[in-house]
Amino acid sequence: MDTEEFLRRDHFASLLGIELFEAENGKARASLKIGEKHLNGLNMAHGGAIFGLADLVFAAASNSYDRVAVGIHADIYFLRPVRKGEVLTGEASELSKSDKLATYAIKITNDQDELIASFRGMVYRKKESLERKS
Amino acid sequence: MDTEEFLRRDHFASLLGIELFEAENGKARASLKIGEKHLNGLNMAHGGAIFGLADLVFAAASNSYDRVAVGIHADIYFLRPVRKGEVLTGEASELSKSDKLATYAIKITNDQDELIASFRGMVYRKKESLERKS
Amino acid sequence: MDTEEFLRRDHFASLLGIELFEAENGKARASLKIGEKHLNGLNMAHGGAIFGLADLVFAAASNSYDRVAVGIHADIYFLRPVRKGEVLTGEASELSKSDKLATYAIKITNDQDELIASFRGMVYRKKESLERKS
Amino acid sequence: MDTEEFLRRDHFASLLGIELFEAENGKARASLKIGEKHLNGLNMAHGGAIFGLADLVFAAASNSYDRVAVGIHADIYFLRPVRKGEVLTGEASELSKSDKLATYAIKITNDQDELIASFRGMVYRKKESLERKS
Repeated sequence: MDTEEFLRRDHFASLLGIELFEAENGKARASLKIGEKHLNGLNMAHGGAIFGLADLVFAAASNSYDRVAVGIHADIYFLRPVRKGEVLTGEASELSKSDKLATYAIKITNDQDELIASFRGMVYRKKESLERKS
Repeated sequence: MDTEEFLRRDHFASLLGIELFEAENGKARASLKIGEKHLNGLNMAHGGAIFGLADLVFAAASNSYDRVAVGIHADIYFLRPVRKGEVLTGEASELSKSDKLATYAIKITNDQDELIASFRGMVYRKKESLERKS
Repeated sequence: MDTEEFLRRDHFASLLGIELFEAENGKARASLKIGEKHLNGLNMAHGGAIFGLADLVFAAASNSYDRVAVGIHADIYFLRPVRKGEVLTGEASELSKSDKLATYAIKITNDQDELIASFRGMVYRKKESLERKS
Repeated sequence: MDTEEFLRRDHFASLLGIELFEAENGKARASLKIGEKHLNGLNMAHGGAIFGLADLVFAAASNSYDRVAVGIHADIYFLRPVRKGEVLTGEASELSKSDKLATYAIKITNDQDELIASFRGMVYRKKESLERKS
């Protein structure tokens, strides 16, 4: 499945305004420009928005093999505050993959290539193919 | 700060459609009805939407003492799939609080009171008061 | 398998000096008296020793159904420092269990019943029975 | 403080049999040969032993600046089973460091340079110098 198709199906990614650039062989990359709608009461990007970007990259990477992968755990360290106007990029790498489980690390960086957040997640890989879900 | 004021300031919570019912003394409770916009490509609620609810409850609980608290780490176990139409409730309890750090556990349950997700997060407590941020 | 048998097989638990009191139906309880050998360079109980107790309780709870369960993820919040002479107790509760996966929360408390650490872990449940491993 | 001195003070590292090779500027490296005493009831290296190695590397890296750093959170993904006789190496890199907080990633690999476990941890950095603790 190509990245356009992935985003078309993923309503939450559209709601947030995430752009997905790559999703294959366990890798994925996406970006998000932080706008008014992503801010919390302290005028910083909401942890949920940063997590949302990481989670989308995680989903794209783990589902890039055309087998349904569902997230079972994720965690995130928030390393720097993010303000309106910053463009964040999330990039996934695959730490492990077996028949049933796979683990991914996602780095979130800003325009200055500073590390904003460090995310890791694990999926359970089902038997069904992704195509059967369309 | 009351819950209405908290939500008015939190744009991301509005974007998601979260309702906040309680936020005081380290406790907080909020809910989210899963709609079309929260779904991923598999037609289940996006991990990011469930995390978003948990994260808002976490923020509300940790900022309920009128001192600015910023999230430094969070993790979530996704225990059951969630479908469109389900109403999720998030409830925080405080595991620890010292001058600088505090830790919260947030349970996400569905209408049938089944445990959907289990979230924990830690904040760094700044010296500034929340009121100075308005 | 009874708790005595479980400990007899678990060399690492013996090395640490852990006592296991209960292990059935997804629950388990064990204790550890912090001695000289558990201290780090700051004269506090090593994070690894506290984790070790939690991990043993996690293993006992998740393997209490006579099917082999292997840990795939665990995390721990260290909430209070622990000194020599304190007796720690770890107690597991089961957050979820499906055919393949199960999740546990383990609370570590001290003699004064203060929460010392909060641990959660997830296992992959294999098809093999525990008895075939002996 | 040199690595020999660090290990001399750390009783738990001695109990496990960990060797520390490097600890400076937020980096650290150590190894552990898995023996009988590190095994669980399934004859695999105990999660607690693998965590113990990672935690020691984490402590050595975070305390390499001569200011006391105490672990507040850690999590670990167990990616491959480990058997008796394998030599594990743990290596830390620093993800972030501010005045009060710092975050580290620790990779655990085996003799074949396969990734065994992926650990991350966060410390709170106290004002006291390490030397005052001796």
